[in-house]
Amino acid sequence: MNVVEKLDALRVLGAYDGGIDRALLTPQERAARELFAQWARASGFALTQDRVGNLFARRDGTRADYKPILIGSHLDTVPTGGAYDGAYGVAAALCALELLAARNLRTAHPLEAVAWAGEEGSRFPLGCLGSSVFAGLSDEATVRALVGNDGVTYAEALASPDGGLLDDVPVREDRDVAAYLELHVEQGPVLEQLGLSLGIVTAIAAQRRLRATVHGRSGHAGTVPMTMRADALCAAAELVLAFEAAARDVGDAVATVGRMVVEPNGTNVIPAQVTFSLDLRSPDEKKLDEISGQMHRAIGRVESQRGVRVEIEMLEKRSATPMTPALREAIARALDGLGEKHADLASGAGHDAMCLGTIVPTAMIFVPSIGGESHVREERTADRDVVLGVEALAAAIVEVDKTLA
Amino acid sequence: MNVVEKLDALRVLGAYDGGIDRALLTPQERAARELFAQWARASGFALTQDRVGNLFARRDGTRADYKPILIGSHLDTVPTGGAYDGAYGVAAALCALELLAARNLRTAHPLEAVAWAGEEGSRFPLGCLGSSVFAGLSDEATVRALVGNDGVTYAEALASPDGGLLDDVPVREDRDVAAYLELHVEQGPVLEQLGLSLGIVTAIAAQRRLRATVHGRSGHAGTVPMTMRADALCAAAELVLAFEAAARDVGDAVATVGRMVVEPNGTNVIPAQVTFSLDLRSPDEKKLDEISGQMHRAIGRVESQRGVRVEIEMLEKRSATPMTPALREAIARALDGLGEKHADLASGAGHDAMCLGTIVPTAMIFVPSIGGESHVREERTADRDVVLGVEALAAAIVEVDKTLA
Repeated sequence: MNVVEKLDALRVLGAYDGGIDRALLTPQERAARELFAQWARASGFALTQDRVGNLFARRDGTRADYKPILIGSHLDTVPTGGAYDGAYGVAAALCALELLAARNLRTAHPLEAVAWAGEEGSRFPLGCLGSSVFAGLSDEATVRALVGNDGVTYAEALASPDGGLLDDVPVREDRDVAAYLELHVEQGPVLEQLGLSLGIVTAIAAQRRLRATVHGRSGHAGTVPMTMRADALCAAAELVLAFEAAARDVGDAVATVGRMVVEPNGTNVIPAQVTFSLDLRSPDEKKLDEISGQMHRAIGRVESQRGVRVEIEMLEKRSATPMTPALREAIARALDGLGEKHADLASGAGHDAMCLGTIVPTAMIFVPSIGGESHVREERTADRDVVLGVEALAAAIVEVDKTLA
Repeated sequence: MNVVEKLDALRVLGAYDGGIDRALLTPQERAARELFAQWARASGFALTQDRVGNLFARRDGTRADYKPILIGSHLDTVPTGGAYDGAYGVAAALCALELLAARNLRTAHPLEAVAWAGEEGSRFPLGCLGSSVFAGLSDEATVRALVGNDGVTYAEALASPDGGLLDDVPVREDRDVAAYLELHVEQGPVLEQLGLSLGIVTAIAAQRRLRATVHGRSGHAGTVPMTMRADALCAAAELVLAFEAAARDVGDAVATVGRMVVEPNGTNVIPAQVTFSLDLRSPDEKKLDEISGQMHRAIGRVESQRGVRVEIEMLEKRSATPMTPALREAIARALDGLGEKHADLASGAGHDAMCLGTIVPTAMIFVPSIGGESHVREERTADRDVVLGVEALAAAIVEVDKTLA
């Protein structure tokens, strides 16, 4: 079964009109792990799972004393997800191991295709859940106590026969890993715009998530003169534009106000309060400091000119994760060897590679997303690129194996 | 019972934590009409109601051949209403008639204090319901078929013993009226800012209500470069500010975006679509044309610069209602006679006087709203101004009676 066929088998699990909803440790996501296990067994790979639900398929190398190179991604989706985000990296990891086996290419390092338990953070309030426990960034006991949006704890979900750990798969204790590779869809429009099929990730961007609340003064839309207003929405509109302008000015960064809630939100009432999200990302953290500085100056200006008060809270602050230069170079050699052009680009989205990157040499390969679409039913990558990605990943594994040896 | 005591008796009807909810033809609003009837009977005024629920208390004049001067407002509130909007004008009309009776002042015209059935349009989808039927602007059969937000038709609500027409009050057929006066709280901050207790309304503003929908292009907040975006919220922010700037430029007009809905409204998703309301008002309709022209130019600019598409729909277009100059002058003489300073001002809010103004000479008096607050629990007018308003209304009735004679 090639990678396109594997994706076709996975895409029906959790499919509904609005896309694919395959949340961690649900029957749909467990069915995806069952498929992974079935494919791994058919190829003769040794299956293991760990206590939080990460699932591994191992092909031994020539050196029993080497730790494994892990290659993987995740099988869960956002509630309106598509067929490629995560699932592609998992299916491709298995296919790459199958390809090497079919070509009788034996690496020195053991290879393990891995399906990380929950990257999206859609059911339980923690992204990169499985990989962060594996990398020692999250405490297992804390994670087991997390409560999902359905009121079920992670420990309960793991024990449930509907969505929990797989039967007949040994539970491992070790967290051995020599290096980590992840193949993923870009989720953005850059490769498509460049007309390229392959990208090598330079870094996973630093990210800050903030929440701003503008406190204005309500009033009747017909009776308060323009000069006597402290309209919270007009103030918020200025800040949205200042935020956008700051990211454009600074460059190599993105800034997004994705969510905005207006109160009381009546057509004939001057807005009293507006709450909005700010999401800013850059591979270079200094850019984020510059944008924050410009935002604070804009807030001061808007407060004094409009008589509003603006609160701003930092909700999340994530450092950049640079990909390992030696692995990036190894991948570049592998793609050159295939005769494929490629570009370097940063990842604005988060990935399991962020966690692995804190403990071992780590690198990522991107294939294009048609129209840059992501986290939607329409998310798609051309079959040609899907197949090429597997070839690229297999070649990268061989080259990385040599580099680490 | 003076006007402050009457307002205290009314303010408990429909009161809850969030304010006063006294929707038309509910038990709470019927209880307010019962109080009106009780007060009118106690003062010896003749009570009538019409078939749509308008309620009248009549004190005869010296000339039986004259049509009555109507003086009134409404007893219903918005769902989060206060104690003054509408109720004050009704209570004050009764008090003014009582004051004239106590002083043995008999006008030539009969006087009728009136509680119009439903001005707010909160339960049934029509504002100034009772007054628009009375003025012949709305067809009675059409109004009877209106369905309230609780699924009950206006005809059913009228017939209900809980909230419907009053027992033992004769139903009248005539719609006789010589002139109309309405005393109302300003609902804005202008009189307070001027340090005045009384205002004479020049006109009820023309109003346009529109809905704009910005169609942008969604995408992952981390992966789409700033230069490749068509962010619907950034485009909407520009339009909100252009709308505000247009009203400020043009002057003597107000423009409000009170409601905005962002889709999909996720913190890490570039907004695909933003819908927002536009409310613009001015006593001078040419100002509204100018603002509309500026908005259309802003829309064209934003569409071409940002690659978004903007739809705009006109939901309501109401002409200005000028108050009758002869009545405004009569009121000014009356207030001068009381030794009270006053200012002319436009009403940005709509009132029953809009409907009456289409058929007979009509004028309005405003008293200040503390902090300009309106349609909220905190809505308040100082007792001193509440009492003064009744004196002003009584004096105005006498002067208008002479003017019309």
